[in-house]
Amino acid sequence: MLNNDHPVIYLDHAATSWPKPPEVFKAMQEALIKAGANPGRGSHAMAVQASRVLFRTRQILSELFHIKNANDIVFTSNTTMALNFAIKGWIKPGDHVIATMIEHNSVRRPLEYLKRTKGVTVDYIPVNEEGSIDLKKVEQAFRPNTSLVVCNHSSNLLGSILPVGELGDMAHRHGAVFAVDAAQTAGTVNIDVNDMDIDLLAFPGHKGLLGPQGTGGLYIAPHIDLTPLLHGGTGSQSIDTDQPSVRPDRYEAGTPNTVGIAGLHAGVQTVLNYTTSRLYEQEWRLTQRLMDGLGHITDIKVFGPQMGEERTGIVSFIMEGKDSSEIAFRLDQEFGIAVRAGFHCTPLAHSVVDTLKTGAVRASVGYDTTNDDIDVLLEALRHISKI
Amino acid sequence: MLNNDHPVIYLDHAATSWPKPPEVFKAMQEALIKAGANPGRGSHAMAVQASRVLFRTRQILSELFHIKNANDIVFTSNTTMALNFAIKGWIKPGDHVIATMIEHNSVRRPLEYLKRTKGVTVDYIPVNEEGSIDLKKVEQAFRPNTSLVVCNHSSNLLGSILPVGELGDMAHRHGAVFAVDAAQTAGTVNIDVNDMDIDLLAFPGHKGLLGPQGTGGLYIAPHIDLTPLLHGGTGSQSIDTDQPSVRPDRYEAGTPNTVGIAGLHAGVQTVLNYTTSRLYEQEWRLTQRLMDGLGHITDIKVFGPQMGEERTGIVSFIMEGKDSSEIAFRLDQEFGIAVRAGFHCTPLAHSVVDTLKTGAVRASVGYDTTNDDIDVLLEALRHISKI
Repeated sequence: MLNNDHPVIYLDHAATSWPKPPEVFKAMQEALIKAGANPGRGSHAMAVQASRVLFRTRQILSELFHIKNANDIVFTSNTTMALNFAIKGWIKPGDHVIATMIEHNSVRRPLEYLKRTKGVTVDYIPVNEEGSIDLKKVEQAFRPNTSLVVCNHSSNLLGSILPVGELGDMAHRHGAVFAVDAAQTAGTVNIDVNDMDIDLLAFPGHKGLLGPQGTGGLYIAPHIDLTPLLHGGTGSQSIDTDQPSVRPDRYEAGTPNTVGIAGLHAGVQTVLNYTTSRLYEQEWRLTQRLMDGLGHITDIKVFGPQMGEERTGIVSFIMEGKDSSEIAFRLDQEFGIAVRAGFHCTPLAHSVVDTLKTGAVRASVGYDTTNDDIDVLLEALRHISKI
Repeated sequence: MLNNDHPVIYLDHAATSWPKPPEVFKAMQEALIKAGANPGRGSHAMAVQASRVLFRTRQILSELFHIKNANDIVFTSNTTMALNFAIKGWIKPGDHVIATMIEHNSVRRPLEYLKRTKGVTVDYIPVNEEGSIDLKKVEQAFRPNTSLVVCNHSSNLLGSILPVGELGDMAHRHGAVFAVDAAQTAGTVNIDVNDMDIDLLAFPGHKGLLGPQGTGGLYIAPHIDLTPLLHGGTGSQSIDTDQPSVRPDRYEAGTPNTVGIAGLHAGVQTVLNYTTSRLYEQEWRLTQRLMDGLGHITDIKVFGPQMGEERTGIVSFIMEGKDSSEIAFRLDQEFGIAVRAGFHCTPLAHSVVDTLKTGAVRASVGYDTTNDDIDVLLEALRHISKI
């Protein structure tokens, strides 16, 4: 329910999941009361309790992503911070990087910054209109100085899923490190960092993992030593002028978001209870229902994978002759439906589907979306298309 | 109350304030329900509400710190991130920096990193045992390539307050930028960025401002252009390969901690209602009571400013012949009193008061600390000192 008490149909899960499971809020409340101290900075009972919250959350995330050592997970405030950490912490001046045309600005802008300032070169591998990549083109892009392959697991505009297992294997055969932006898949698509050869996995806490905003993290494979993004106090080896060598302290300076991380624990627990496979199935069925309905509305063009193909819970579309922002505005104002319109921070992906001028409407489903929600959206779009 | 239901006397406010005012939690709950969306990434009602939460919090912080334009405040996940942003974003290779010997590792480690990697030179100005600085020594340290003066407003070990107004004036006379680490003063010592010539102000949300962990910020004076610490999506000017030029977007990439920031708003509102001056007075009186009592316990040595002098709510001490960690452990286990022992992430300050081997016990008071709390701590210390 919104402040004006009209019910909201929330179809913007790709931006952040909402509402959070009630357990998330309970966990945050309990952490504020019982673990309100500063973890790792004292031996008193509350500080110990705060450290425990962090460790338990690392453990449950390790279970989800099949990570051997929980201390290889570093908390960040969002995926963008994790990706900046991975990209700026690994790439050296003069390196070559392989990415794709469907990267979010959280990957592209750090890479462009390194191009401008460190003589780094980047190949953005093209994708087709369905968001698929030609692995041969990736293979051909490697150079002797390719130090990193970085890509999203699923496009935040097209909903297509990249073959990260194959890309990881290819990166390793060429001696490059493999980094994955799991902003749209953590919690809803199975991820196994070992099977998929993932060296660096950036993930949000507040999307598919159902935790609060202000949480996220980066898995750093044990053999990877990154230049820390942040230098500062860690509550350990305080006398050293450099960050401690021990993980996760080396990569976590400053007071962590203990309350948010407690909420994240509850979110991940919810995901593990449902199971990622069931969440994927459920969201996939909803996208198929939506796509089927959209296919019958005149002038609507849907992007991304065809019906029947793998995809995450994202369906983006345009309505010919109508401005995307106006459609989203009317859905919100007249129907209480929250979707997102605009450029989705991924300009190259928009160029692929020729929506650089129009933007696109993005509806994205989540763990509590129902068939009814989809049907209400379709009815509203039919209404708008007639006018 | 802790989980084992024994009452806790919380004297670790310098690490994080606890408990938070009830309004903080209410505001977080409301934000999770009503403003759970991703601010600036959509036009739907919840996204607009989330943007409003951020803007209102910038406004109230501007009121507190006398900042003219609320958009010159950038949210970070803690003070450490704000200081990394300020220091790494401003200093150029070959620059000279002036800091002090009482800096926290959140200032010292970024500076040492720049020394190792960018040919930066740093002078750490000595302080005396009371934590005071000789302004003449600062004046003498300036060189033609001094680009930054950075210091904490109050030492997190000694509780002394540095004359930031004079230091800011001096920095500006020498053409340097002035950055202040307000980790121990934001909310409890008056700060006016204009009067004090502060160009960059890093502050925590979860200490004196009474907000939740995972919040903090950096004020960036309008004439200062920093290299962003994070590059990524901002929901604005998405097609540009660089960060947008507009503030605060330029410096805030990725999903913000809207729920935490809503809590911060409620914390700052509490501070404004009490007023910073009254909070300072109250904490100061408590420190005087504590110091008076400590002065009568055999073998206790107190650091920092003398009685009657200005100080923040921090009182650090050692007990001759007893390990600091053991004292803190016993206070916690036997008396339910939470203090912090150890090295407090400020090794040079420990060298000043010769506690590099022993560490120190730090008791720090906050907005809800009472005379009784102080008296219970003193009674416990008298008991420990006799054994």
